[in-house]
Amino acid sequence: MAPAKRGILERLDAGEVVIGDGGFVFALEKRGYVKAGPWTPEAAAEHPEAVRQLHREFLRAGSNVMQTFTFYASDDKLENRGHTQRFTGQQINEAACDLAREVADEGDALVGGGVSQTPSYLSCKSEDDVKAIFKKQIDVYVQKNVDFLIAEYFEHVEEAEWAVQVLKSTGKPVAATMCIGPEGDLNGVGPGDCAVRLVKAGTDIVGINCHFDPETCVKTVKLMKEGVEKAGLKAHYMCQPLAYHTPDCNRQGFIDLPEFPFGLEPRILTRWDMHKYARDAYNAGIRYIGGCCGFEPYHIRAVSEELASERGFLPTGSEKHGSWGEGLLMHTKPWVRARARRDYWEKLKPASGRPFCPSMSAPDGWGVTKGHAYLMQQKEATSEEQLKVLDKAKKY
Amino acid sequence: MAPAKRGILERLDAGEVVIGDGGFVFALEKRGYVKAGPWTPEAAAEHPEAVRQLHREFLRAGSNVMQTFTFYASDDKLENRGHTQRFTGQQINEAACDLAREVADEGDALVGGGVSQTPSYLSCKSEDDVKAIFKKQIDVYVQKNVDFLIAEYFEHVEEAEWAVQVLKSTGKPVAATMCIGPEGDLNGVGPGDCAVRLVKAGTDIVGINCHFDPETCVKTVKLMKEGVEKAGLKAHYMCQPLAYHTPDCNRQGFIDLPEFPFGLEPRILTRWDMHKYARDAYNAGIRYIGGCCGFEPYHIRAVSEELASERGFLPTGSEKHGSWGEGLLMHTKPWVRARARRDYWEKLKPASGRPFCPSMSAPDGWGVTKGHAYLMQQKEATSEEQLKVLDKAKKY
Amino acid sequence: MAPAKRGILERLDAGEVVIGDGGFVFALEKRGYVKAGPWTPEAAAEHPEAVRQLHREFLRAGSNVMQTFTFYASDDKLENRGHTQRFTGQQINEAACDLAREVADEGDALVGGGVSQTPSYLSCKSEDDVKAIFKKQIDVYVQKNVDFLIAEYFEHVEEAEWAVQVLKSTGKPVAATMCIGPEGDLNGVGPGDCAVRLVKAGTDIVGINCHFDPETCVKTVKLMKEGVEKAGLKAHYMCQPLAYHTPDCNRQGFIDLPEFPFGLEPRILTRWDMHKYARDAYNAGIRYIGGCCGFEPYHIRAVSEELASERGFLPTGSEKHGSWGEGLLMHTKPWVRARARRDYWEKLKPASGRPFCPSMSAPDGWGVTKGHAYLMQQKEATSEEQLKVLDKAKKY
Amino acid sequence: MAPAKRGILERLDAGEVVIGDGGFVFALEKRGYVKAGPWTPEAAAEHPEAVRQLHREFLRAGSNVMQTFTFYASDDKLENRGHTQRFTGQQINEAACDLAREVADEGDALVGGGVSQTPSYLSCKSEDDVKAIFKKQIDVYVQKNVDFLIAEYFEHVEEAEWAVQVLKSTGKPVAATMCIGPEGDLNGVGPGDCAVRLVKAGTDIVGINCHFDPETCVKTVKLMKEGVEKAGLKAHYMCQPLAYHTPDCNRQGFIDLPEFPFGLEPRILTRWDMHKYARDAYNAGIRYIGGCCGFEPYHIRAVSEELASERGFLPTGSEKHGSWGEGLLMHTKPWVRARARRDYWEKLKPASGRPFCPSMSAPDGWGVTKGHAYLMQQKEATSEEQLKVLDKAKKY
Repeated sequence: MAPAKRGILERLDAGEVVIGDGGFVFALEKRGYVKAGPWTPEAAAEHPEAVRQLHREFLRAGSNVMQTFTFYASDDKLENRGHTQRFTGQQINEAACDLAREVADEGDALVGGGVSQTPSYLSCKSEDDVKAIFKKQIDVYVQKNVDFLIAEYFEHVEEAEWAVQVLKSTGKPVAATMCIGPEGDLNGVGPGDCAVRLVKAGTDIVGINCHFDPETCVKTVKLMKEGVEKAGLKAHYMCQPLAYHTPDCNRQGFIDLPEFPFGLEPRILTRWDMHKYARDAYNAGIRYIGGCCGFEPYHIRAVSEELASERGFLPTGSEKHGSWGEGLLMHTKPWVRARARRDYWEKLKPASGRPFCPSMSAPDGWGVTKGHAYLMQQKEATSEEQLKVLDKAKKY
Repeated sequence: MAPAKRGILERLDAGEVVIGDGGFVFALEKRGYVKAGPWTPEAAAEHPEAVRQLHREFLRAGSNVMQTFTFYASDDKLENRGHTQRFTGQQINEAACDLAREVADEGDALVGGGVSQTPSYLSCKSEDDVKAIFKKQIDVYVQKNVDFLIAEYFEHVEEAEWAVQVLKSTGKPVAATMCIGPEGDLNGVGPGDCAVRLVKAGTDIVGINCHFDPETCVKTVKLMKEGVEKAGLKAHYMCQPLAYHTPDCNRQGFIDLPEFPFGLEPRILTRWDMHKYARDAYNAGIRYIGGCCGFEPYHIRAVSEELASERGFLPTGSEKHGSWGEGLLMHTKPWVRARARRDYWEKLKPASGRPFCPSMSAPDGWGVTKGHAYLMQQKEATSEEQLKVLDKAKKY
Repeated sequence: MAPAKRGILERLDAGEVVIGDGGFVFALEKRGYVKAGPWTPEAAAEHPEAVRQLHREFLRAGSNVMQTFTFYASDDKLENRGHTQRFTGQQINEAACDLAREVADEGDALVGGGVSQTPSYLSCKSEDDVKAIFKKQIDVYVQKNVDFLIAEYFEHVEEAEWAVQVLKSTGKPVAATMCIGPEGDLNGVGPGDCAVRLVKAGTDIVGINCHFDPETCVKTVKLMKEGVEKAGLKAHYMCQPLAYHTPDCNRQGFIDLPEFPFGLEPRILTRWDMHKYARDAYNAGIRYIGGCCGFEPYHIRAVSEELASERGFLPTGSEKHGSWGEGLLMHTKPWVRARARRDYWEKLKPASGRPFCPSMSAPDGWGVTKGHAYLMQQKEATSEEQLKVLDKAKKY
Repeated sequence: MAPAKRGILERLDAGEVVIGDGGFVFALEKRGYVKAGPWTPEAAAEHPEAVRQLHREFLRAGSNVMQTFTFYASDDKLENRGHTQRFTGQQINEAACDLAREVADEGDALVGGGVSQTPSYLSCKSEDDVKAIFKKQIDVYVQKNVDFLIAEYFEHVEEAEWAVQVLKSTGKPVAATMCIGPEGDLNGVGPGDCAVRLVKAGTDIVGINCHFDPETCVKTVKLMKEGVEKAGLKAHYMCQPLAYHTPDCNRQGFIDLPEFPFGLEPRILTRWDMHKYARDAYNAGIRYIGGCCGFEPYHIRAVSEELASERGFLPTGSEKHGSWGEGLLMHTKPWVRARARRDYWEKLKPASGRPFCPSMSAPDGWGVTKGHAYLMQQKEATSEEQLKVLDKAKKY
């Protein structure tokens, strides 16, 4: 039997880099297994081979964490999103744990069981009701013995605190990330204050995921770190940003961009953008470095390659990749071979090939938050009547 | 036992739409199984689960053709490209046939066995030598009983003719595509003339693949069709373009763009761009409609959805996709729900999120072709010395 | 008394470069003396000091030609365009001749008297009627003894031929330019054929003005030159392009761009773009090199500076300009001083400062020509009713 | 004799809009009378007709202020900038006053005599020395009896205070503007504090000129206004921004953009951008609304047209301009006539016509300020040796 793997805190306490995985929801949407809109993870039970394959690709790319594919797998969400009821929430969560564990054991990876924000909170249910939702998912993770727990994708620090409290009660290590930018959560609580509250609630690792590009996320984690240190507290830091450039986002992130979610292609980061991200995150003192929506395996591989000297090794997947493009030395055309150098790719300003498109968009600016009538969650698709009300309410 | 599937020509003769698959080399490079530069397909033997999964995704997306993952799997190329010799060309070709067949039989798809341009031709080997290369791959396809044969990715019509002649000798239906634009092949033979020569050489289906965006490829196939019809010949037409916008390419296509191959992200087509492509191709009389480098399963699904009424059905994968974004009616935020309409996505001009980047690039302009010293293929990586010579030769 | 100046043909026959001036209509619109829409030149009589000043600036910039500010100064146009009748066409034409002569005599410049396309032609008046319009303007130029005559801004070669015939009848040297691109005139007559017909009609100098950017215009003059030479004829060549980048124009030029005429600013050429233009034009064998709409005095100065060694001198205005930015050596900030070199400015890719704007536009595509009901000229402003008909007719 | 004109404070106290003029230095550089680099105003004495004409164009455009063309006309600057000594500072200042007065008296405009930051301050001369520089210019303005005094283009609030003190001593109304953005002056003093200090020093009108686009300048004046009101003080507010879009500037404004000063064309504001500026400035409580570098007469006319209802009249120059493009109703082509409406121009996102250029630039980031060795002013042009030192010091 293999020796027990070292735990997430053991690694971070030792100053090691832990590389996360990428966003399953977006990657599997493009592969045909997740439906944009509901964004629910029934594929874990319905098409396990597709989920297993994606786990394996991230493992090859260097990920030390296999996150269970359980995003939005709470019963209130599954019910709300037209899920066909072929699978219960419990079945999906269990299947996701098994898949993550299977692939994690093919390499040096840990299983992280995740929960995220709930429709119940947005619809103003009580603290007890919301915590019960988290509890139900966590029970599966404990039973399946995941290695640590992740509370991620929270827009309101209050809900994130509740999640951390539930997760912490299991005794397992806890990581918590919010999907906010430098302006703070949807009630205007700044990143520093959010981080302090989460650390006080019991999280071991704190940071940012989703909603913004790497540059913005690293900047926001820095603000979190400043807040935590100023409060005389201690924590580890993590970052799992989008793989999309979002210089034009407002507080609510890429959801509000007109391109979300079906026109984001021109914003996808290159592997070289990822090298920069990995270095910036490392320099900011972040040691749990992963990705979220838009990250494909090659993006994580680039993170692993940038940090190869810090980690002491290249990921398995680098057998199919020459660092900084050196594989091009084997290209048929000699002028492509001439691109096989770091200097070339670092300086390249890639063209969009879209001369009729702008470089930035004006995001929607709704600014509504928890409790607003627009956010009361419903089972039904939005009706024509409701869309008309929305159209009128639009501010621009 | 299932009834025998209808053949490729049976379908095309009946006026049906045949949907191809996407480019395996680029998709698997991003997943970590193909090395950019050599671009060889050893993954068919080395990581069959990854290749099988990609086949399956294209099948779900609506593909009627599973192309064997045998691009550049000729012995001269494998040898030339630093291939590790863990697998012979024959092993790779056989494994690729088995994988394509396995998945094809999970649905209504045919297996197409492919050959492409050879280092031998570029290095001025004789017609016999080059044909022997093709023959060796074809022998495997015949033995594995693929449904039809594809000669694809030819920059010189002469080499394509040789390939068609070898393929035709098997008695199986033959499709032939060149990777050229409206300016014609690298010796300046126009698309119409190329098509006429290929039809005369025996191809049943003729068209374009790779190197240019859908708009350019459809335009070039139109020129081929005009040429064939003007010559009083008959053929079926196919198109398998890039999923990258390339308005700025010169004759040699995206290879010459400074972004090739590691900075093409901003050029990736959206699913809505693919609807337009599918409609344009259909309107141009093209009935074999697929993709090449850059195509992911969701791109092929978009083609299938655009042509759902012509084909009479939606692909399996559409269970996870509302046409024209209607799945967004289930999104949490009401203003995102307001994007659930065709009109919204058709008009969207997606921003790049890259204000420091241009919209077009100046391609390299080497203009060398078969026989030029620069194109003599070698086993070794390009040396520093050779790169210096190239730098001096650069024209800009 | 000063020695008589050498004539336009004397100079061109000697192989000298003749530098034209810039477009008065656009420059004076920005200064507040010409109304966009009618574009008539009543300022020659109404605000002579403004016209004189602009002439003087072009003279300082190196222009060898002062074109009379008589664009659209035919009676049919003046009448058609809501002109207030404070001045007759004759008064305007006379005043313009006097101003041009006054400033020409302050330096080594010639006076060119110009005519351009007429509403009468568009409205299908007879050859005699159209020629009578030209004759009326020409009579003034002859009486005022201009140095040579210019027929410019013709979209139909037939009307240009008629103009040349009238001009030629005076015995003065004649230059003729059409406002067409490589696709030819609005009836599809190619640039080569247009040039041949104009040379046969008697013009001494033939070329292109307005409607397209320098790159396109130089390319079109080259096609004219090829046509003329192929026909065994001889001519001098001239080029007076826009100072706007128009890579996205269709056959009818910048008029059809959505930005015309009040949103063209981002397209304005820099002085460095003008250096390139001057060199390209010179290399193409063009010796009469000037400008049209958008050209400001500093643009013409840049042309003069680029061709200083060919001409043997710098223009007077260069006393206030260091070639290739060398005046910056006197700038307060040292990092701006570091920009005082040719290499810096030649390589600069100037940013638009407009991240929400695209780099190219889709031009209107009406494609109507002389004789179409839409082009029948009327005195009245377009009515609401007419605009509605137009809106429906719009093809996109 | 005409009745005495109402003074600047009389107008502002009555709540009237006062429209400034545009930047003479940049406009006359393009016309060939000012040398970029030294940027000195010897043209007032050398080419009075050109300066007079530009004054007149701004008057026609609606300007209520003729600023004396005396920018950088202090003796220390003239001496420093290679000025040829054909004219003394006094001669230039006197000539500029006479020209401004002559044209001001052709309409309802006042003469404003201006001083701006000095090389002496940058080179760390004493307060007395710097004040003596200002005093010398002011003596001319008093003798020529200008209507009010302007201290403009200061990067350090301390020097601006000194200027205001000198100006105030004359008993004439004083306006003071700094060329700073929201980040404050080069020593980090915020806009609010700068404004408070200037009001305390005695200025009647306070605001921003140059260095940033209208959006940024209006935002900065708002910060000034907040500061002044918070301090319980009173002032009038003015704004004279660039006519260039500068979303990418850092603290030192457009000087640091790579395009400064010879590649700014793609950033030029359209007349419609100016309508927005005028409205935003008015809404912010700014009543002295003018322009700086890049403003041409038609830009000021657009400001006047936007504020026509507030002022009760259109400027003279509008006789040659239909508001919101209505002059296009007289255009030859009917589809251009269809553009004769506010809605069309307000929504237009003008294309750059430059697909190879980005939309934003990375500015130089020197961050040096008064007292730094790099800023010690010298008579001589920067030497090769000095440029090398600068190149090495460059931070990017």
